[in-house]
Amino acid sequence: MAKVAILMGSKSDLPVVAPAVKVLRQFGAETEVRVISAHRTPDEAHAFAAGAKARGVGVIICAAGKAAHLGGVIAAYTTLPVIGLPVKTDMMGGLDSLLSIVQMPSGIPVATVGVNGGENAGLLALQMLALGDAELSRKLEEYKANMAKKIAADDAALQNELASL
Amino acid sequence: MAKVAILMGSKSDLPVVAPAVKVLRQFGAETEVRVISAHRTPDEAHAFAAGAKARGVGVIICAAGKAAHLGGVIAAYTTLPVIGLPVKTDMMGGLDSLLSIVQMPSGIPVATVGVNGGENAGLLALQMLALGDAELSRKLEEYKANMAKKIAADDAALQNELASL
Amino acid sequence: MAKVAILMGSKSDLPVVAPAVKVLRQFGAETEVRVISAHRTPDEAHAFAAGAKARGVGVIICAAGKAAHLGGVIAAYTTLPVIGLPVKTDMMGGLDSLLSIVQMPSGIPVATVGVNGGENAGLLALQMLALGDAELSRKLEEYKANMAKKIAADDAALQNELASL
Amino acid sequence: MAKVAILMGSKSDLPVVAPAVKVLRQFGAETEVRVISAHRTPDEAHAFAAGAKARGVGVIICAAGKAAHLGGVIAAYTTLPVIGLPVKTDMMGGLDSLLSIVQMPSGIPVATVGVNGGENAGLLALQMLALGDAELSRKLEEYKANMAKKIAADDAALQNELASL
Amino acid sequence: MAKVAILMGSKSDLPVVAPAVKVLRQFGAETEVRVISAHRTPDEAHAFAAGAKARGVGVIICAAGKAAHLGGVIAAYTTLPVIGLPVKTDMMGGLDSLLSIVQMPSGIPVATVGVNGGENAGLLALQMLALGDAELSRKLEEYKANMAKKIAADDAALQNELASL
Amino acid sequence: MAKVAILMGSKSDLPVVAPAVKVLRQFGAETEVRVISAHRTPDEAHAFAAGAKARGVGVIICAAGKAAHLGGVIAAYTTLPVIGLPVKTDMMGGLDSLLSIVQMPSGIPVATVGVNGGENAGLLALQMLALGDAELSRKLEEYKANMAKKIAADDAALQNELASL
Amino acid sequence: MAKVAILMGSKSDLPVVAPAVKVLRQFGAETEVRVISAHRTPDEAHAFAAGAKARGVGVIICAAGKAAHLGGVIAAYTTLPVIGLPVKTDMMGGLDSLLSIVQMPSGIPVATVGVNGGENAGLLALQMLALGDAELSRKLEEYKANMAKKIAADDAALQNELASL
Amino acid sequence: MAKVAILMGSKSDLPVVAPAVKVLRQFGAETEVRVISAHRTPDEAHAFAAGAKARGVGVIICAAGKAAHLGGVIAAYTTLPVIGLPVKTDMMGGLDSLLSIVQMPSGIPVATVGVNGGENAGLLALQMLALGDAELSRKLEEYKANMAKKIAADDAALQNELASL
Repeated sequence: MAKVAILMGSKSDLPVVAPAVKVLRQFGAETEVRVISAHRTPDEAHAFAAGAKARGVGVIICAAGKAAHLGGVIAAYTTLPVIGLPVKTDMMGGLDSLLSIVQMPSGIPVATVGVNGGENAGLLALQMLALGDAELSRKLEEYKANMAKKIAADDAALQNELASL
Repeated sequence: MAKVAILMGSKSDLPVVAPAVKVLRQFGAETEVRVISAHRTPDEAHAFAAGAKARGVGVIICAAGKAAHLGGVIAAYTTLPVIGLPVKTDMMGGLDSLLSIVQMPSGIPVATVGVNGGENAGLLALQMLALGDAELSRKLEEYKANMAKKIAADDAALQNELASL
Repeated sequence: MAKVAILMGSKSDLPVVAPAVKVLRQFGAETEVRVISAHRTPDEAHAFAAGAKARGVGVIICAAGKAAHLGGVIAAYTTLPVIGLPVKTDMMGGLDSLLSIVQMPSGIPVATVGVNGGENAGLLALQMLALGDAELSRKLEEYKANMAKKIAADDAALQNELASL
Repeated sequence: MAKVAILMGSKSDLPVVAPAVKVLRQFGAETEVRVISAHRTPDEAHAFAAGAKARGVGVIICAAGKAAHLGGVIAAYTTLPVIGLPVKTDMMGGLDSLLSIVQMPSGIPVATVGVNGGENAGLLALQMLALGDAELSRKLEEYKANMAKKIAADDAALQNELASL
Repeated sequence: MAKVAILMGSKSDLPVVAPAVKVLRQFGAETEVRVISAHRTPDEAHAFAAGAKARGVGVIICAAGKAAHLGGVIAAYTTLPVIGLPVKTDMMGGLDSLLSIVQMPSGIPVATVGVNGGENAGLLALQMLALGDAELSRKLEEYKANMAKKIAADDAALQNELASL
Repeated sequence: MAKVAILMGSKSDLPVVAPAVKVLRQFGAETEVRVISAHRTPDEAHAFAAGAKARGVGVIICAAGKAAHLGGVIAAYTTLPVIGLPVKTDMMGGLDSLLSIVQMPSGIPVATVGVNGGENAGLLALQMLALGDAELSRKLEEYKANMAKKIAADDAALQNELASL
Repeated sequence: MAKVAILMGSKSDLPVVAPAVKVLRQFGAETEVRVISAHRTPDEAHAFAAGAKARGVGVIICAAGKAAHLGGVIAAYTTLPVIGLPVKTDMMGGLDSLLSIVQMPSGIPVATVGVNGGENAGLLALQMLALGDAELSRKLEEYKANMAKKIAADDAALQNELASL
Repeated sequence: MAKVAILMGSKSDLPVVAPAVKVLRQFGAETEVRVISAHRTPDEAHAFAAGAKARGVGVIICAAGKAAHLGGVIAAYTTLPVIGLPVKTDMMGGLDSLLSIVQMPSGIPVATVGVNGGENAGLLALQMLALGDAELSRKLEEYKANMAKKIAADDAALQNELASL
């Protein structure tokens, strides 16, 4: 399985990124987790993106907030799929981060997930890797089935609580 | 190469979807293009999503506008990566479509591109498929290099036009 | 009186849903309260909606947040009136939930109430049921008259507090 | 079948209201269509709402734009279900109309449909009336089935057009 | 001096209204402060507005939140100037309240102040009354001069604090 | 009757301002209409505002768009009531103009009307002047009654058109 | 006088950029006008920014739309002041461009002007250069005085047109 | 080096302004820090702006919130570059402040930084002053290099923490 790189623009974004790391580890994916800033360490961003494919990276998750350029900057230097993870800010609930990531010009897509959607960023990376990995694909279906069981269990638990509402 | 399915919630979304189809064809990808509505033909949506993997589909692009549920409904029935393509509306430039697609709950990601970002939806699908296809990966790099040449040519042309500004 | 079903996309939505349950119980309506997710348990959602009419359900309230597809997914499978209850999120005060619910395509309406408007969702269901139930209609008028009395009492109490302002 | 009243705050809203009238007529519903302004003819609004139930009206659709108070004003005077139909404006695509209608205080619900969602307002009224009318309920299911056929036909037509894309 | 009426749609709006009451009292204006709901006590709203001029009211301040109809409903029944005071909500910082109040149709103005702008609502009422009251006009100029002194004092105090910044 | 001054930040705002001028003339008010820019002619703005009361001006209407500072700048130099008229822009339908005008700090109110609400700006000025002018007050009631007649006539005309809908 | 560089992300942005070029030429500033894309020609962007100071560039204006990363990418590679010029889009009037440019992280400012504010971008560059150029500073004051004259002339012309309003 | 003036509309804005003061002091810039209100002390604002250049001020930073007119009012009276610093409010995360500052009319630019972007306001002022100050320019490059080192250190620290995630 190719590696998944997870970049964050600031170390303070780690709580948003952590669910991505966890779900990737849970599925046995190898990860690289890095603090790389599009604005403060642009050379590092360039070097990382340009060398990723050769290092065995398959997908790159980029978490950033406000004028969140990290995803776009990485995507400018690679044709690997880049997943943009908008970090919640005080500006309209992260709308600044979301628009800065998703509204990319033609030719340079960034696959954007919801604001603070760390787990989804990780799952999306896994879905991409599963295109060539039948075992991973099977595990994702299992994960999905477990989610359904969790909802069913919540539903059952709810019935007991309704009396005391 | 796995097939790319491109669904639209309404036939009127075709102009937004067309650039995706074109770029996929340009790279030699096999496509299925369908009108399937999450709300008007939910059984068809279910059947399509549940059977996609078995039919050789690798990635599913879902274009929809307003309360754009198509991507989420398809993603509910498959673990293939789903790309959400928000269609521009009159409500704040498609903000309704964008939020309805990107703000998915944990566990069910939809890889969202920009409003009316048809070409990017197609390219993102190709980037995913290229994870297991070195030739496609090479072609994407060539495409990227050509975009750079196009910008450089525009820059050169601009210099001639500046005198008459 | 037909039953009122109240679905929530996640058990964590219960506090938003509770005022709906309470007002329905207060009027003697029979309720079914369920955790059913449009994305995690789509088959259950389908089955629930398709069988609702036959089970004596008259109105279905669907509470969901973010890319809130539950109301639309249920409405896709039934012609019973579906009431959409947007759950407040951090994204612009629930604007994502509201737009994802209210902006439905032609042919599949969802009767949307305000963000976190649980009591109104319940009352709206009762108003629908009262179309064929004169006694319920009379009770709703009584409820309305009591609200007016409550405001009048607040107004009277306010006059006493003004001196100390 | 009870009558459906359709009010518009200004005669210029007629194009938004017309699809509601048409779908109601198509199902054989009796309609009253009126220009009544919450702000310019408040007495008429009061009289209309207070007398509606006695005149055999079952549901009231209220179309209005900008600071769209018509639905709320009518709902203040009746316990009949009131459907709010936000009219598109130049302010953020009708967001002013939508918020002015949907964000009602507890106790006075207005069942809101999407911006310029005239057909859905009519269908929602029919769904409410069908709670006590099995024949109407059957017709609504037929209408839904026809929508699915229309989508399937669009899908078939699309396949022929794809070659020339 | 004519009286200033201050209406709030809910007694919970009192903290927003209090600064208006205070500044009006400070200038010696006679006030009526009432809880009157456009939706729950529409008859009281009608009666209040229709009788205001005869009772010696000159200006009416209306505070309300969410789908804030109170100002518009009062303005529908009187030609006295109505000041709309939007109450902050969780929906985009009170944008729902603001748009519901300010976007009135032609013919029925509501003089809107900022979200939670209680003091400004009171001052605006005083400015209106001062059109026919030279002594009040003089007092308002004094108040303005005192605000300038307050800022100058803050500026002086700041200079002492800068060293320790 | 005191004069009403109508300022616009740019001569291009005249079409938005014209309905204010027209309704003021219709009621026999004396007007001063000026192009004065808060940013380009700040000294003129200062001089105008500071001298307005002495010249017999009672109310000042300020129309401006984008970062619309004119109302606030005029209000800084006078205690006359200032009416802010936001001019529609391409930014979210004039939301920039609206927020720049209405969100004034405590102490300096600007009475804001809706975006492009020229007629309402004029009527609001008349309502203020009518506080000390019984004849003008009577005329405003007549105007209101005529609006109601216009709506009733529209309603009657609509009934004839419904057949051909 | 140092040179002013004007970059645009796409040649189609030229109409937005042209007023900047014109006002800079009018003041005799030397300009470099380039099409450089942060996403399509990132190496060119890097090279341009890193070499700008040495080539005698003093200020860099960057025009871009949607997820407008050009200003931030240039600012990452230079300490010259970078002016961000947001290009209007269909998404809420360019709010996506504006937020993507202005909401920069601490340490890397971009001096942002209004949406499509080309002339202001040029003037701001001149104001910066005038810090060390008394003659340029004097010309800017002259320009400001001429703007005031233009407004005064508009005001005079308006007086003649008012009769025919 | 010219002085940098830092104005705030209210003393309560000091926490937003403090990072600007700190970074300016760190680079040895001379500062004037003042509380001056565009609305409450307009004469002081005028006097300050008109006399700034003669007193040796080179750049003026203006922090303000809500209908934030301070930057525009200062810019109206000087051709020095004015930096607008929007203060966060409860209205959509400071969108009111941002739009009121950035959307200036042609001819009067305000260089706007992000909401609560105090450090960036200070750095931008320094970048402007560095146009004529090679030593300051060198220090800014050093500051930039240190930011990169800080990110690299964060990245290194992160690697140690990942094990315990």
